[in-house]
Amino acid sequence: MIRSMPAPAHEHRLRVRYAETDQMGVVHHANYALYLEEGRTRCMAERGCSYAELEQRGIGLPVRRMELRFRAPARYDEELIVRTRVGKLGAASLTFESEVVRADDGQLLATGTIELACIDLTNRERGPIALPALVRELAPPGTAPA
Amino acid sequence: MIRSMPAPAHEHRLRVRYAETDQMGVVHHANYALYLEEGRTRCMAERGCSYAELEQRGIGLPVRRMELRFRAPARYDEELIVRTRVGKLGAASLTFESEVVRADDGQLLATGTIELACIDLTNRERGPIALPALVRELAPPGTAPA
Amino acid sequence: MIRSMPAPAHEHRLRVRYAETDQMGVVHHANYALYLEEGRTRCMAERGCSYAELEQRGIGLPVRRMELRFRAPARYDEELIVRTRVGKLGAASLTFESEVVRADDGQLLATGTIELACIDLTNRERGPIALPALVRELAPPGTAPA
Amino acid sequence: MIRSMPAPAHEHRLRVRYAETDQMGVVHHANYALYLEEGRTRCMAERGCSYAELEQRGIGLPVRRMELRFRAPARYDEELIVRTRVGKLGAASLTFESEVVRADDGQLLATGTIELACIDLTNRERGPIALPALVRELAPPGTAPA
Repeated sequence: MIRSMPAPAHEHRLRVRYAETDQMGVVHHANYALYLEEGRTRCMAERGCSYAELEQRGIGLPVRRMELRFRAPARYDEELIVRTRVGKLGAASLTFESEVVRADDGQLLATGTIELACIDLTNRERGPIALPALVRELAPPGTAPA
Repeated sequence: MIRSMPAPAHEHRLRVRYAETDQMGVVHHANYALYLEEGRTRCMAERGCSYAELEQRGIGLPVRRMELRFRAPARYDEELIVRTRVGKLGAASLTFESEVVRADDGQLLATGTIELACIDLTNRERGPIALPALVRELAPPGTAPA
Repeated sequence: MIRSMPAPAHEHRLRVRYAETDQMGVVHHANYALYLEEGRTRCMAERGCSYAELEQRGIGLPVRRMELRFRAPARYDEELIVRTRVGKLGAASLTFESEVVRADDGQLLATGTIELACIDLTNRERGPIALPALVRELAPPGTAPA
Repeated sequence: MIRSMPAPAHEHRLRVRYAETDQMGVVHHANYALYLEEGRTRCMAERGCSYAELEQRGIGLPVRRMELRFRAPARYDEELIVRTRVGKLGAASLTFESEVVRADDGQLLATGTIELACIDLTNRERGPIALPALVRELAPPGTAPA
């Protein structure tokens, strides 16, 4: 997939909680998974695809792969901006590209790629199902598979 | 309820995870709720009442009240002992008394009282239901309500 | 301490994260400790007493006692309001009274009392120290100890 | 780097906590970062390189990159085995390869690659420093860089 110009990213602001720091005095790396998820679901909701509603309709988007790179540490009480872009769409999966920057000075703190599977929550096997239209419409034009 | 001699406590050992510390260099207080829950459910399971099985039978024991007192800090990589005693039984509730001590020197770190409601997970309202026999039998003789 | 009229509470809004739910489909009780802490520190900061700055000056406010009562469950993606009031001031401690309500309908979800010790982070023992002026001024008139 | 035969993996057992599940009824993906960290630090400690002691000596190993793939869900109360292998050693970094399997039936649940930087905690910049001997000795023969 080639994108000559990246679509504008969704931005979500949050503030680091005390409990998210560790004894190194910085945010523990596991919390970035929560930050990205919060940014991703706000992105989806503001583009008309509430994840809460998707689940109520029996569709789940569990994380299948997560890759995070940590560039600089975030600290307690800092305001962070989570930028989220919808990436590749598959038949029963989709990928988000995210980055976390410090609001104060724009310092890049972390980048991440999250691949979600699309599954049927209404049967026991929870097998893959095709992305519903609401989810497909999240992707910018030109990013859909042929 | 008067107990002249406390019943022997169940003991569960665990080790502090790095992510459970905060920038003060000690375990963040919210994690004690997890430690007590782990101790409490191991106590129940070893006395024949697996909480996982209770839920599969449609019975839930959500926390209704939690009181924790913090005496001394726990630190990363320390081994802790969670002591759990079944306390008061109500018609549709039960209380656990817990304490957390450092395994190395027996230092008391925290004490807690957790009151659980007993609810019916099989209907939408999730209203209170009487404690099932398996749960009632957790309590030492003499602690049951008249 | 008697207060005939409660001081107006600070209000902080937050949204339930997916990871904060558990398999009962509601917010796990330990997360309320994080919600109250977030509300409490925003309350402090907006009243001129940033906890981040207190720590930089060598003053810590660890939790000494926490009592939480859970009235109704919070669910994924709900917006919550955390109300925080400064309660009793001690010589080297202070207490906050908090409540969590659902923003949508005002339903009371949880109430909590959190007692903080005031300690000296600059020496190894981290012993108690008198509340600094910035902290004492958080309390509404008439709530200070005689 | 080519390894014709993988070194035997370290195994660490843990049990899924209730709070680690989410409303999908499975372990939330962020918790695997904690599981891998617990396995990795037990692996290190049992091979003579306690991470707690490393930090006391002023050496930190923060996560620089984390890649996790989720194959099948873990559920509440299941016993999991975290297998950890030391992978590539760099001048100021090292990589661990991990996998999580269900103890009961050996089902593979997740795999992960974690790259750690080695930094100097004793100065403000926390710049990179060469891996200390204790850490280098974690790697099986033949895996060290030329």
